[in-house]
Amino acid sequence: MPALQQKSANKVFNGTLTKYSFPSSALGNLEANLNVFLPSSASSSSPAPVLYYLSGLTCTEDNAAQKGNFFEAAAKEGIALVFPDTSPRGAKIEGEDESYDFGSGAGFYIDATKDPWSKHYKMYTHIVSEIPAALQEAKLPIDFSCASITGHSMGGHGALTLYLKEGDKKYKSASAFSPICHPTACPWGDKAFKGYLEGGVEEGKKHDATELIAGTKGKKLNILIDSGLGDNFYQQKQLLPEDFEAAARKAGHGEDEVQVRLQDGYDHSYFFISTYAPEHVRWHAKFLKN
Amino acid sequence: MPALQQKSANKVFNGTLTKYSFPSSALGNLEANLNVFLPSSASSSSPAPVLYYLSGLTCTEDNAAQKGNFFEAAAKEGIALVFPDTSPRGAKIEGEDESYDFGSGAGFYIDATKDPWSKHYKMYTHIVSEIPAALQEAKLPIDFSCASITGHSMGGHGALTLYLKEGDKKYKSASAFSPICHPTACPWGDKAFKGYLEGGVEEGKKHDATELIAGTKGKKLNILIDSGLGDNFYQQKQLLPEDFEAAARKAGHGEDEVQVRLQDGYDHSYFFISTYAPEHVRWHAKFLKN
Repeated sequence: MPALQQKSANKVFNGTLTKYSFPSSALGNLEANLNVFLPSSASSSSPAPVLYYLSGLTCTEDNAAQKGNFFEAAAKEGIALVFPDTSPRGAKIEGEDESYDFGSGAGFYIDATKDPWSKHYKMYTHIVSEIPAALQEAKLPIDFSCASITGHSMGGHGALTLYLKEGDKKYKSASAFSPICHPTACPWGDKAFKGYLEGGVEEGKKHDATELIAGTKGKKLNILIDSGLGDNFYQQKQLLPEDFEAAARKAGHGEDEVQVRLQDGYDHSYFFISTYAPEHVRWHAKFLKN
Repeated sequence: MPALQQKSANKVFNGTLTKYSFPSSALGNLEANLNVFLPSSASSSSPAPVLYYLSGLTCTEDNAAQKGNFFEAAAKEGIALVFPDTSPRGAKIEGEDESYDFGSGAGFYIDATKDPWSKHYKMYTHIVSEIPAALQEAKLPIDFSCASITGHSMGGHGALTLYLKEGDKKYKSASAFSPICHPTACPWGDKAFKGYLEGGVEEGKKHDATELIAGTKGKKLNILIDSGLGDNFYQQKQLLPEDFEAAARKAGHGEDEVQVRLQDGYDHSYFFISTYAPEHVRWHAKFLKN
């Protein structure tokens, strides 16, 4: 695997935020960008646990790094943060840049199975395997065996599904801000699965958090969701957190394992994420540091 | 004075960030935008003290509201925040949009005296008088008799100079991130004063924090400055915090009145501001709430 290229570095909360790029084989050898926050406490003899943050539609690796308000709590808890991009960039597929909810900026954290998307749109493999391998090879002081995952909107769907599919061998806990909880039952998921998957929405069930949690009876889960009641996408039934919660309860998971909190007045923006980000970091720290 | 128009509102840290616009007579009747954060504790019977934040070159009223990390501390302390824009917009003066450090986005928080700028570029009056009057007329639950001021870079120059000129009848304390401290002695200030002021750099001395603090012997001051040693503009001698500190000490102000802290490794970005913003809010709270 080729070495990471450092694009920029900024000191923040006594740690360092570094932007890297590397040629991604998962993404068909396109250049992939990501941001990594290392707390000042991380060292080769004392590597930091890591929290991945998956961003939402239209975002890049930068939005949450600039506006998410994760650094103060992560610095205090001694947790590294990894912010990947939301899709391949520059695959030059027809239609790739035509809509905000499909193609560029909208990879949905799945491995596409349908041509022509399947050559480049392998965001699942990129996040789950490729990024930790690349950072590990670069000898960053991060303990990838001690990882959790969070995200917003499409990235909340990503965080929940990666956790539910990979389990605690990869991620100790999952949280989400305003996640798309039931993509096979909402317009965003319908469009994405029909576009990226040979089997369409039926195949999409494998990547649907509400479908996935139904099959977790008897497993111990650590999930926290915050979603705003003033969120227009919640009101338009793109998010459907109630479906996820009902499926979780039906599978036997109580509040101690799956918390779904609907927050009065908050919308879909980074102002909402920034309000609850510190609490999510501290919540993950309980699982990452015990 | 015409009423404020509300453009947007977002809940954040249990308070509300609202974007307003109004036709500004100080700015030659151009439409002016600003953001206002109200903590949930503010009410007509218990109005909040206020901290103004003046932004730097190229910024608008949005940058620090999105990336500055001021809300958590302000919510906790019960302090309102006002984020004005950095210049008039759309004055249609020749050359207005040609450079990042003069004209649009670069009003320098002074009242221009030179044609054609003097018709619109009256940011001093806009910030000191017009904005509080407009917000007060709109009956926002803010106690404008209890105000402090902060800012970044050009806005740090603004915060220091407004405080030093208006004194504690307007502002109880001033802080600044990476401020331009001695504009008559640096390229940014030289360009701005020659462009906006009939008397050029000589007239600019009236708007220069290092010159102004020299005349404050015997006055009690509350000033806090943070500037990064990894800041390329510091290294290029655009900021000159040492000049300000020397002038402050010469005028008899010790560390208890004027603190100038040079922070190792930090650059000029919002990552630096966000790191120290909570501490600045808490520092101002001591003066706003006693």
